[in-house]
Amino acid sequence: MAKSSTVLLCLSLCLFAVLSHTCEGRQQWQQQGNECQLDRINAIEPDNRIQSEAGTIETWNPSREQFQCAGVAIVRRTIEPNGLLLPSYSNTPQLVYIVQGRGHTGIMFPGCPETFEEPQQQGGQQQFQTGGSAQDQHQKIRTFREGDIIAIPAGVAHWCHNDGNEPVIAVTVHDTSSHLNQLDNNPRNFYLAGNPEDEFQQSQQGGRLSRGQDERRKRRQGGSTTCNNLFCGMDSSFIAEAFNIDENLARKLQGENDNRGSIIRIEGQLEFVRPPRRAQEERQEQGGGRYQLANGVEETFCSMRLKENIGDPSRADIFTPEAGRITTVNSHNLPVLRWIQMSAERGVLYNEAMRLPHWNLNAHSIIYAIRGQARVQIVNENGNSVFDGELREGQVLTVPQNFAVVKRCESDRFEWVSFKTNDNAMVNSIAGRTSAIRAIPADVLANAWRVSPEEARRLKFNRQETHLASSRSQSKGWTGRNVVKELVKDLLM
Amino acid sequence: MAKSSTVLLCLSLCLFAVLSHTCEGRQQWQQQGNECQLDRINAIEPDNRIQSEAGTIETWNPSREQFQCAGVAIVRRTIEPNGLLLPSYSNTPQLVYIVQGRGHTGIMFPGCPETFEEPQQQGGQQQFQTGGSAQDQHQKIRTFREGDIIAIPAGVAHWCHNDGNEPVIAVTVHDTSSHLNQLDNNPRNFYLAGNPEDEFQQSQQGGRLSRGQDERRKRRQGGSTTCNNLFCGMDSSFIAEAFNIDENLARKLQGENDNRGSIIRIEGQLEFVRPPRRAQEERQEQGGGRYQLANGVEETFCSMRLKENIGDPSRADIFTPEAGRITTVNSHNLPVLRWIQMSAERGVLYNEAMRLPHWNLNAHSIIYAIRGQARVQIVNENGNSVFDGELREGQVLTVPQNFAVVKRCESDRFEWVSFKTNDNAMVNSIAGRTSAIRAIPADVLANAWRVSPEEARRLKFNRQETHLASSRSQSKGWTGRNVVKELVKDLLM
Amino acid sequence: MAKSSTVLLCLSLCLFAVLSHTCEGRQQWQQQGNECQLDRINAIEPDNRIQSEAGTIETWNPSREQFQCAGVAIVRRTIEPNGLLLPSYSNTPQLVYIVQGRGHTGIMFPGCPETFEEPQQQGGQQQFQTGGSAQDQHQKIRTFREGDIIAIPAGVAHWCHNDGNEPVIAVTVHDTSSHLNQLDNNPRNFYLAGNPEDEFQQSQQGGRLSRGQDERRKRRQGGSTTCNNLFCGMDSSFIAEAFNIDENLARKLQGENDNRGSIIRIEGQLEFVRPPRRAQEERQEQGGGRYQLANGVEETFCSMRLKENIGDPSRADIFTPEAGRITTVNSHNLPVLRWIQMSAERGVLYNEAMRLPHWNLNAHSIIYAIRGQARVQIVNENGNSVFDGELREGQVLTVPQNFAVVKRCESDRFEWVSFKTNDNAMVNSIAGRTSAIRAIPADVLANAWRVSPEEARRLKFNRQETHLASSRSQSKGWTGRNVVKELVKDLLM
Repeated sequence: MAKSSTVLLCLSLCLFAVLSHTCEGRQQWQQQGNECQLDRINAIEPDNRIQSEAGTIETWNPSREQFQCAGVAIVRRTIEPNGLLLPSYSNTPQLVYIVQGRGHTGIMFPGCPETFEEPQQQGGQQQFQTGGSAQDQHQKIRTFREGDIIAIPAGVAHWCHNDGNEPVIAVTVHDTSSHLNQLDNNPRNFYLAGNPEDEFQQSQQGGRLSRGQDERRKRRQGGSTTCNNLFCGMDSSFIAEAFNIDENLARKLQGENDNRGSIIRIEGQLEFVRPPRRAQEERQEQGGGRYQLANGVEETFCSMRLKENIGDPSRADIFTPEAGRITTVNSHNLPVLRWIQMSAERGVLYNEAMRLPHWNLNAHSIIYAIRGQARVQIVNENGNSVFDGELREGQVLTVPQNFAVVKRCESDRFEWVSFKTNDNAMVNSIAGRTSAIRAIPADVLANAWRVSPEEARRLKFNRQETHLASSRSQSKGWTGRNVVKELVKDLLM
Repeated sequence: MAKSSTVLLCLSLCLFAVLSHTCEGRQQWQQQGNECQLDRINAIEPDNRIQSEAGTIETWNPSREQFQCAGVAIVRRTIEPNGLLLPSYSNTPQLVYIVQGRGHTGIMFPGCPETFEEPQQQGGQQQFQTGGSAQDQHQKIRTFREGDIIAIPAGVAHWCHNDGNEPVIAVTVHDTSSHLNQLDNNPRNFYLAGNPEDEFQQSQQGGRLSRGQDERRKRRQGGSTTCNNLFCGMDSSFIAEAFNIDENLARKLQGENDNRGSIIRIEGQLEFVRPPRRAQEERQEQGGGRYQLANGVEETFCSMRLKENIGDPSRADIFTPEAGRITTVNSHNLPVLRWIQMSAERGVLYNEAMRLPHWNLNAHSIIYAIRGQARVQIVNENGNSVFDGELREGQVLTVPQNFAVVKRCESDRFEWVSFKTNDNAMVNSIAGRTSAIRAIPADVLANAWRVSPEEARRLKFNRQETHLASSRSQSKGWTGRNVVKELVKDLLM
Repeated sequence: MAKSSTVLLCLSLCLFAVLSHTCEGRQQWQQQGNECQLDRINAIEPDNRIQSEAGTIETWNPSREQFQCAGVAIVRRTIEPNGLLLPSYSNTPQLVYIVQGRGHTGIMFPGCPETFEEPQQQGGQQQFQTGGSAQDQHQKIRTFREGDIIAIPAGVAHWCHNDGNEPVIAVTVHDTSSHLNQLDNNPRNFYLAGNPEDEFQQSQQGGRLSRGQDERRKRRQGGSTTCNNLFCGMDSSFIAEAFNIDENLARKLQGENDNRGSIIRIEGQLEFVRPPRRAQEERQEQGGGRYQLANGVEETFCSMRLKENIGDPSRADIFTPEAGRITTVNSHNLPVLRWIQMSAERGVLYNEAMRLPHWNLNAHSIIYAIRGQARVQIVNENGNSVFDGELREGQVLTVPQNFAVVKRCESDRFEWVSFKTNDNAMVNSIAGRTSAIRAIPADVLANAWRVSPEEARRLKFNRQETHLASSRSQSKGWTGRNVVKELVKDLLM
């Protein structure tokens, strides 16, 4: 009982938070016509693939009906070991889920100090100007690992490096319909370096390319000299003056004839100041005076937390031993999400278990299947099934706001991450202990569905679980031993 | 003087509130083109009528120009005594005004506990599973009566029952352009039970039906088996598993061949746990231990107030004995309105009295005429009259943001309710003691309109009333006796 | 060092503020299609000019691509000495910059008391009704002068008078895509008096006129009787009743055959109650009991500050003696901007100095050139230069959100004001001490651009300035004497 009231308390707090800041401020360019009159939704694999020197970028065409309705654009990046994703920023807020691998990322906020500093050798700051053996300094670097959700605000530049032994796989959802994006609904990446291809080149509104993109593409295909980063549009003399450097170096910034793409291979090892990876060591180092943070606001803001691990089984918010687990991240446990107005949910279903039918009260849900496969049904306001099929590893499926959805694991194990277009996405169950049905008097149910009072009571009270349920719990074929086996599997994955 | 400063204080507080939360977050899909280039607005009666077993549903076509500009959809429901409106939720926030009748409604918030519980007989919760004579429990039930405004957030399911002796008449405005609706601008109702027809079937964008709706309609007309509620799109085996029931019962949830529509007749009396209606009795009962609320957040949030009576004459905010009264509800007296970003105003004009000319500063106003008739003029930015005519009982008229409007009672009595698309809708008078004209120096007025200083002063100071004025006050034909007669009439209505 | 951390602190606070109210609530009607797929941006002079009795109104066609992308409409008004801009309100929030001149303005908030009152002579308030020598009273009047930014919320009426000796020149940006405008994206002015021509008559969506506007225009051209203010759409009998005046006077409000336009000439001197202009005198007068403010909310709200001077050199936020200065106004120093969701920046570049390359993180920037000329380059996400040319006095240039921009003074002196579509517009530098480049580890830069470690360090550390830099500082040709000369010039301008 105590457990259940904690859950209720938690859900109530969520709802209360939504109430108390009325202004999710979400705005939808797609409300214009009938963008969400979806007769059919599909589970989709990426439409487009770009090979870079040290990785690949795959995109889902954002002009597809379901993404137009949800106002999102989706990318999957694979970064090989020692690959570097070049610094860029986007016109949309984005939420990144690390499916696999580990690395570090620099997310640069304007006005924040360079708090990672090489140990001083001799002399002061002037020596930078003379070059040579001077020490470096830069903004905070953040590490990431499998299971992390990383929030990147619109217009904020970032880069990313794989320092592990396996490829990093990262799935990113851009919220193109966010009010934070004041440009049109096309996702855009602005690169500071390199000569990258446009990730969304095939994906413009209505399938047609904008003139600029078409041009860029032609140049690339024609093999002529291309130049796509921000410096390409400036005179080299301007760049030289701005950086107080010679024009030769300025021209190098424009990256002409650089064919490495947006993920490049680091020669040797990437060297920069960073704390050791393990938390204990970090604390020791800090005690040792390595950091010279001024005692000001930048300690609180510039070091803001931008990530949260939702892959770790021990962090589950909803857990049913025989059915699976769900971990959520929203603006209550990751406050930056209030800024970017998105949240996420990571789930695991064990063999034949079911995510009970529900609807998303105040958000779209974009599901990326991480592992295994599930049977999913999605129902619109007419009672029509707009999706009834398999969702497999690597596919994306959109569940529009208010549409009903039910998922059932069809493999040993089904794992997914759902990106939601609200920083406090709420779910309303249709079956189970916290469902809408349970909230209705039995006599209303009996009259509504023309069933007997006894049947109405069964509808309300037969399913005691809240969000996840195993079909085996029904047939009593479930034993403690099975539970332990599943759990061990979960921890080992 | 004290009175007037209270009004000023109140208005100032309203304005201040708007300032301090900048983010009404309202977003308008219709800003795309020229949706508000209205040459002509009309007073309109419902376009469509659906007969259900125990009531009727009338809708105004939301693709009409004035509703496209305001971004709203309007429905009037008549529920016969002992009729039940089936549980459903909508993709838009909605504001309901009870024109007539009384009843109770269940509005189900996810995660809130079932706090209405039948007295325990013997045994604990397990007995629910065995069915039989077990007690029921469900979420809070709210009562409503004539004059109530009820706020229902987007995506929140609710049902409604008429337990009075006369039909319940309820007018609902859906804010389709709210940022809380992330789907397109079509109003949608998602039903949990029954087999209801789509209320807005003729009303899609540009008059054309979406494919799904067309299909549904055809099936209905063809007399073939139809199924429109949320369970229809799910396999009955899935439903059975989700509810832990047999497939037979699961199929009953799909409501095939149920032709009762969305308002059904209750067989016998609807039975559920509820406190007695009168407040005193309620308090006694509570003392008697009937309620077993946990001592947690749900006491504050889950029991949130969702309604406010604005029909009661004694609650008037603006009152001029010889002219009429106005009662407003906004997020200051009903905080949930901050969430759904709407507010309302209830007004009464006595014989020949006038609502002084004004404009809505930050909202559209959708007027529903409850009783009597009035002459109304609406002026656009070009100084053109876009409406100049009668507004009669049962008609709807839209006054777009910033358009000037003046109303004059043309019957014994004119009563209306205005729904506004801002939780703190502000009005700026053009004439009267708190008007814009009064705020301008007399010499500016004299120059602007080329009138004499003495005429300018008359413009400013001849009308001492603030929002409502009787033409009879001018001719001094108004006596204390008349005033008393009107007031008595008001109280008796 | 202390100085730099103050700047950092300040920027951090700004960012923090954006974080803590997530909801700038900005919504963009133009996100629908490809409105920001700009291949070419131009520096533009006004498209349209309307001559009034005592001034001119020039507008930029808001259907131009760059203004459609930014969602703004721009007007420049020139008011001759003793000219009066007639009272009106707009469906959009607006930000006004006073390029030249001085005057006073009445901005009328609904519900605020008339706190400017003529000294009492004899008798009470009744005497207003008898006309004659009675005293006047009205809302607060505000003065303005060159360099002021004035914020006017949507739907709030205002008038303006030039009481100086030179013409007042005011540039106004309307934020048509603001969520505070619930009408469509056309800028509209609702006039209370006069018979003004529509400022944006040539400027409707797609170039075509709406029917209403076309009509108005025809009437005007045909020389027939026209009437364009709000009273024109009401019956004179209604007006008479509303103001409690005779119909003769009511008809005068409709301003028929008034051909003076929206800026009229005051006959003689405009007389109204106002405090003396100098601050000291004002304080003395207040002590003398001239003001009779009630002790209530209106003291805090109704006297809200709506303007801030950003022209005064002593108020610079960023100042580099040899390069120039920048002054910003945002919701931190002018809180009303939180309401209207805009901010502004006033800049001066000295001879050959450069505004370092940067991008606007969360806003569009609409630059109006006040004096001199500059070479400007703007780069889009494809690395294409969408503008590379001169920006001259009196021209407007839009820099869309996230596009990179660099400016260089090409005359003795270049002065500008930038209007931004966010109340806390943030800028991210590409070069200089607080730039994104500086925040990236040198080894990442070296790999990204394939430059040597030493070159990477030069990129990071060669430019020590933050936002403004003089090319001459490079060549060491800059002396203390030159600096003084520039500064003196600045103060004398």
